[in-house]
Amino acid sequence: MTAPLTSLELRSTVSSDGKLTLSLEPVTLEAPGPDEVIVRVEAAPINPSDLGLLLGPADMATLATGGTPDRPTLTADILAGRMGAMKPRLDESMAVGNEGAGTVVEAGTNVAHLLGKKVGMLGGAMYAQYRKLAARDCIALPEGATAADGASMFVNPLTALSMVETLRMEGHKALVHTAAASNLGQMLNRVCIADGVPLVNIVRSEAQAQILRDIGAKYIVDSSAPDFREALTDAIAETGATLAFDAIGGGKIVNSILHAMEAAANRTATAYSRYGSSTWKQVYIYGMLDTAPTELDRGYGLAWGVSGFLVTPFLMKLGLEGTLRLRARVAAELTTTFASTYTQTISLAEALDPDVVQAYAKKATGEKYLIDPSR
Amino acid sequence: MTAPLTSLELRSTVSSDGKLTLSLEPVTLEAPGPDEVIVRVEAAPINPSDLGLLLGPADMATLATGGTPDRPTLTADILAGRMGAMKPRLDESMAVGNEGAGTVVEAGTNVAHLLGKKVGMLGGAMYAQYRKLAARDCIALPEGATAADGASMFVNPLTALSMVETLRMEGHKALVHTAAASNLGQMLNRVCIADGVPLVNIVRSEAQAQILRDIGAKYIVDSSAPDFREALTDAIAETGATLAFDAIGGGKIVNSILHAMEAAANRTATAYSRYGSSTWKQVYIYGMLDTAPTELDRGYGLAWGVSGFLVTPFLMKLGLEGTLRLRARVAAELTTTFASTYTQTISLAEALDPDVVQAYAKKATGEKYLIDPSR
Repeated sequence: MTAPLTSLELRSTVSSDGKLTLSLEPVTLEAPGPDEVIVRVEAAPINPSDLGLLLGPADMATLATGGTPDRPTLTADILAGRMGAMKPRLDESMAVGNEGAGTVVEAGTNVAHLLGKKVGMLGGAMYAQYRKLAARDCIALPEGATAADGASMFVNPLTALSMVETLRMEGHKALVHTAAASNLGQMLNRVCIADGVPLVNIVRSEAQAQILRDIGAKYIVDSSAPDFREALTDAIAETGATLAFDAIGGGKIVNSILHAMEAAANRTATAYSRYGSSTWKQVYIYGMLDTAPTELDRGYGLAWGVSGFLVTPFLMKLGLEGTLRLRARVAAELTTTFASTYTQTISLAEALDPDVVQAYAKKATGEKYLIDPSR
Repeated sequence: MTAPLTSLELRSTVSSDGKLTLSLEPVTLEAPGPDEVIVRVEAAPINPSDLGLLLGPADMATLATGGTPDRPTLTADILAGRMGAMKPRLDESMAVGNEGAGTVVEAGTNVAHLLGKKVGMLGGAMYAQYRKLAARDCIALPEGATAADGASMFVNPLTALSMVETLRMEGHKALVHTAAASNLGQMLNRVCIADGVPLVNIVRSEAQAQILRDIGAKYIVDSSAPDFREALTDAIAETGATLAFDAIGGGKIVNSILHAMEAAANRTATAYSRYGSSTWKQVYIYGMLDTAPTELDRGYGLAWGVSGFLVTPFLMKLGLEGTLRLRARVAAELTTTFASTYTQTISLAEALDPDVVQAYAKKATGEKYLIDPSR
């Protein structure tokens, strides 16, 4: 390949009149600067964190196809009452895809050693045939690793590691995690086992529990079981967990975790405190598998916090040295601790197919889609 | 007076069979130790923070009187489904009343200078004719101050000051406060005006707004007005408030504040961020005027936190020196910045009268009850 080259890029646009449009737009990539590379994207995951930008709050019942077979489009109505939040992105054609991996096809003079190498990339706009970016936003994959191996080496691994870093920074002893059989949850189990951090896994089915048992998880609680509250309290009491990371967000799961932490704290309380236990209980919400409101009945005193969690600001708080330490661990353990599995690999055009969109928008635990734009 | 002396003390008991009983129990006070005093209690406020211990989750429709005119009792049923949280206090006779003021009638050898002085007190069990406590838990009132002046010199003043200390510790520029026309809210306005901290007051009626205008409040937003959201966003945008203290707890007020903070942040945003603004938005819930669940729709990105807030742990975090600094300010400005007003003064026996209980349990803004056990 020689630049300038043309790349099709997946774009998401919300128009002022309330329509979402997905399309594949040609963009021209000029030759890379001295510290830049151009990568042929061969694998980019559809993470839950990509879906907000990709689909917006679209009404999934209104998906409609258009365009041509080579350049398909997909449209949908934005849900009533959700246009307010769209204001900052109205009528802007937004590129999508937080991370990906592929082969370096052009390299600037200072980074010529990367030419022909497979790399993982972070930086947005990864749902594209080619991506030009700074070499510092790439990590060369270990010998023998495929693009699929390197496609998810940032978001999930760094999020899992950030959870354990948060535990250490805030002085907690053990961790609770929801939707715990996800790719991220499996990574977190492997990290916690290696690091000796007790982890209470909350899953929603026996099948998910089995996935975690198979990788050596010790504490697994099924929220669909009738004794969920009691079993969760037992596991929290045994591990001393006072920190939780929640991927679900909506409904009562955060509330249930705080109640269980408070009940566990009160098992060892020696005196009645009218304001609840003095044990600080912290839940971070990092996902939105349930878009319903979070309901907190506050029946656990006043020593509690619920916060949003996003990995990038956390890494800024951790600092450059800490971030590089985490990145190095991910690269070293890419195909072991941080291995991801995908249930489907699709082309860019297929990412705009209504049936496929319905499937990946479900965010079912264990289902994971990979886009291969080189197909 | 000479010890041992007998004091009637208000007690609250929740029995295993689901009954709340309030009673006046005689207790014998032995002579004070060298660093202790005995105080005749002449004024003790009924704070919202006392009501949980005093009334528990009682069904207010079931209040029934008993006992004798001198030693009345009051009983009520505990609300269905709320007995679980009562477990740690079951069948224990609990003394009530966080703070109060009165006259020192006996003093230990090391603190004899306090004899005959009026003092403010912190430490529980203040709904009693006499209270023995360590002299370090008393503050001598300034010349000319009455017991009523000193009755509320701990909980509300230290909470108001802690809010401003929190603002400084966490690096916020301005503050939002709800139920802002309360005694505490009025104190907070006087503190913020003196300290130059912009304060956005949220009230629920025009009458409450007028109370605050009269003491010089600049930003007042009425949550019952149709343009509440817009007016709140304007005030937050103008002040740059990213911190709120909420006395209400339940319902959607916390959510509305976070939305307004996010909308204010987005007014100056230059680019769309799919994860919401990067401006950290923090709400502390310190009261429970509405016992309904807190509902968070999370439509304000991921840079937000909601936490419980209790003044005692905060002061422990602030440290002894900081706490003494705040206490000294309260004593110096007791009848100005930290003046409280009371709508009713009642006797210990009247505190058990069903009609009176109904009234003070309402926690209406502007209504404040004072118990004078010396009546």
